[in-house]
Amino acid sequence: MKREKTQVGIIGAGPAGLMLSHLLARAGIASVIVERRSREYIEKRVRAGVLEQGTVQLMRDTGLGERMDREGLVHRGISLRFEGRDHRIAFDELTGGSTITVYGQQEVVKDLIAARIAAGARLHFEVEDVSAHDVSTSAPKLRYTFAGEQIELECDFVAGCDGFRGVSRDAIPADHLVRYEREYPFGWVGILANVAPSSEELIYASHDRGFALHSMRSPTLTRLYVQCDRGDTLDDWPDGRIWDELHLRLATDDGFALIEGPVVERAIAWMHSVVTEPMQYGRLFLAGDAAHIVPATGAKGLNLAVADVRVLSSALDSWYRTGSPAALASYSDTCLRRVWRAQHFSNWMTTMLHRFPTDDAFQRKLQIAQLRWVSSSRDAAASLAENYVGIAAV
Amino acid sequence: MKREKTQVGIIGAGPAGLMLSHLLARAGIASVIVERRSREYIEKRVRAGVLEQGTVQLMRDTGLGERMDREGLVHRGISLRFEGRDHRIAFDELTGGSTITVYGQQEVVKDLIAARIAAGARLHFEVEDVSAHDVSTSAPKLRYTFAGEQIELECDFVAGCDGFRGVSRDAIPADHLVRYEREYPFGWVGILANVAPSSEELIYASHDRGFALHSMRSPTLTRLYVQCDRGDTLDDWPDGRIWDELHLRLATDDGFALIEGPVVERAIAWMHSVVTEPMQYGRLFLAGDAAHIVPATGAKGLNLAVADVRVLSSALDSWYRTGSPAALASYSDTCLRRVWRAQHFSNWMTTMLHRFPTDDAFQRKLQIAQLRWVSSSRDAAASLAENYVGIAAV
Repeated sequence: MKREKTQVGIIGAGPAGLMLSHLLARAGIASVIVERRSREYIEKRVRAGVLEQGTVQLMRDTGLGERMDREGLVHRGISLRFEGRDHRIAFDELTGGSTITVYGQQEVVKDLIAARIAAGARLHFEVEDVSAHDVSTSAPKLRYTFAGEQIELECDFVAGCDGFRGVSRDAIPADHLVRYEREYPFGWVGILANVAPSSEELIYASHDRGFALHSMRSPTLTRLYVQCDRGDTLDDWPDGRIWDELHLRLATDDGFALIEGPVVERAIAWMHSVVTEPMQYGRLFLAGDAAHIVPATGAKGLNLAVADVRVLSSALDSWYRTGSPAALASYSDTCLRRVWRAQHFSNWMTTMLHRFPTDDAFQRKLQIAQLRWVSSSRDAAASLAENYVGIAAV
Repeated sequence: MKREKTQVGIIGAGPAGLMLSHLLARAGIASVIVERRSREYIEKRVRAGVLEQGTVQLMRDTGLGERMDREGLVHRGISLRFEGRDHRIAFDELTGGSTITVYGQQEVVKDLIAARIAAGARLHFEVEDVSAHDVSTSAPKLRYTFAGEQIELECDFVAGCDGFRGVSRDAIPADHLVRYEREYPFGWVGILANVAPSSEELIYASHDRGFALHSMRSPTLTRLYVQCDRGDTLDDWPDGRIWDELHLRLATDDGFALIEGPVVERAIAWMHSVVTEPMQYGRLFLAGDAAHIVPATGAKGLNLAVADVRVLSSALDSWYRTGSPAALASYSDTCLRRVWRAQHFSNWMTTMLHRFPTDDAFQRKLQIAQLRWVSSSRDAAASLAENYVGIAAV
């Protein structure tokens, strides 16, 4: 077994792990990233696509903004569509100027990988059998196989950024973790269509038949979703059925025209909430999906991951500069405040917009009353806007 | 059978019926109120105790404000109490100066009865066997027995203001009504204690053990409530148990002292939502609890009743003055917008503050995240405040 050393061993080259390595490097802290998948795979993996104002600013402030500012689409609002009409939520007016940027997670990943490689980072793809050891001691280790060679990486700290199905949580004794969880009884069938978006902004539609979302990846790629039942498969949703449901759920009294185009990708995603507490055990710190999952409705997953590693890099910087463990000790509590705010917001958006199998007529009337209120009360609209453009820890 | 005539026949001398008669009289429109109970009974019947800003202003504007302004308690905010701390929602600061007034429903009823009698109104108590007839014609009638005499009252219009268990809804064919309903799986055990309130403002407490509310009737009468299970009886809640739960649920980290006193009243109320649509059939108009019930958490029941009859009196005035049926035709839709806003707000407050038997640990975490948000985001706090001080139809 070959022995290597670094300051922070990072498991996973998703947005959390890559951004952490990037932020640490800017503070002069060395790291090694080990990733199970190939570079090609993770650069093509489609996930979230909405960046909060704070995520955009962090990208810019750390030298990652160039392509995002060129190719990303700045959105100043979204539309809530119900009862056949649009009700715009004007983010910029309601929040004192904040906006969101539509820029795919895989684009953020590409930019981060390029920047890390250009800076000479130790970033290893297609690593096998990763495991974390001795995380409750002051000398934690990662073990893995890379290019046929067994490696033991000695670190000061380990960051578990390997997503919901990752291995880093396994290094924490089960009786030290509490898991909070909710399965929503539905999912989203999503398609990517090779056609210009039918609307300039995102449309969140709450229809008697269920939720639908009109979004976009670029001026020539439309992203569309319809709520489906849990257990549905892609076989249940041929393109024709998806388009039919989109036309029905996105219809307006004044004849909204949804433009169809060739479907170039299709997928089903389930709506699921998980929070694992605490997000730290000894010298192992969990970040992003490794610690928490939110339903996609609030567009918070990627932004939470970035927020976590921002807190973590700052706390590690404080430890290396001053020797004080205070910031590291409060990492979990600091992140969890934001995580639960995002869980509540995501749940609020999800329950406002989707039909649940158990909903009765009273519940649908409550939903419509809520949607009317959110789209007519300035205070209520601002509550949505301030959460959508960027959650402050509370 | 003795035949009598009036313009508007009103069933029920609760706040809705009395206020309607009062407002109609000010517009020069005659009415007769028939009430099953005695005057003494309804003047002692304890119900709601929080008047919205608009209800207070209507009382004042129509000559009913004198005693309310002398004895009512103006409140500029409430406290949300959770995690052992108070979080004040400052209504006046958040809404541009609006407040609420704590003044018991039975005091409003007393003031209205006194004003109606002083004005020579035809206000009949202890009336038996009330029924409405021919409401789909232009000559509806009320039939009832008063002081041993059978009476048929010919009217232009009938107003059903006889509460949730009243008879007026029975005059509408069942297939013309849709009923939306929700039973909450809990109730409130309420006591009135002969002691000064332990706090100047209302305290809404969300505790792991369940909801509790500290309120008051006057500077020497404290009103207290604890969430109980559906099916509980007063026998399940001896005074000692009520005080014990109040002490536990209202406890704060800085030692809140709940002052006990002699219990002079005790009751259990169930949390229940009902909306009957439409609120009109022919020349019969339903108002207040006859058409809708809200859980007590939002303090909206009395205020909705007053809002209904305000719309109705104005529509009737328009009909008598101009002959136009337009305002009467839109009565139901106009009222239902506000009713559903109130249902949503009441549901929102109820689900935020109570424990449900089906709640899991994830749900409690969401509640705490919501409470932290409502008490730290200005927009979210203002959303609560604007609904509490007075709901505008949306």
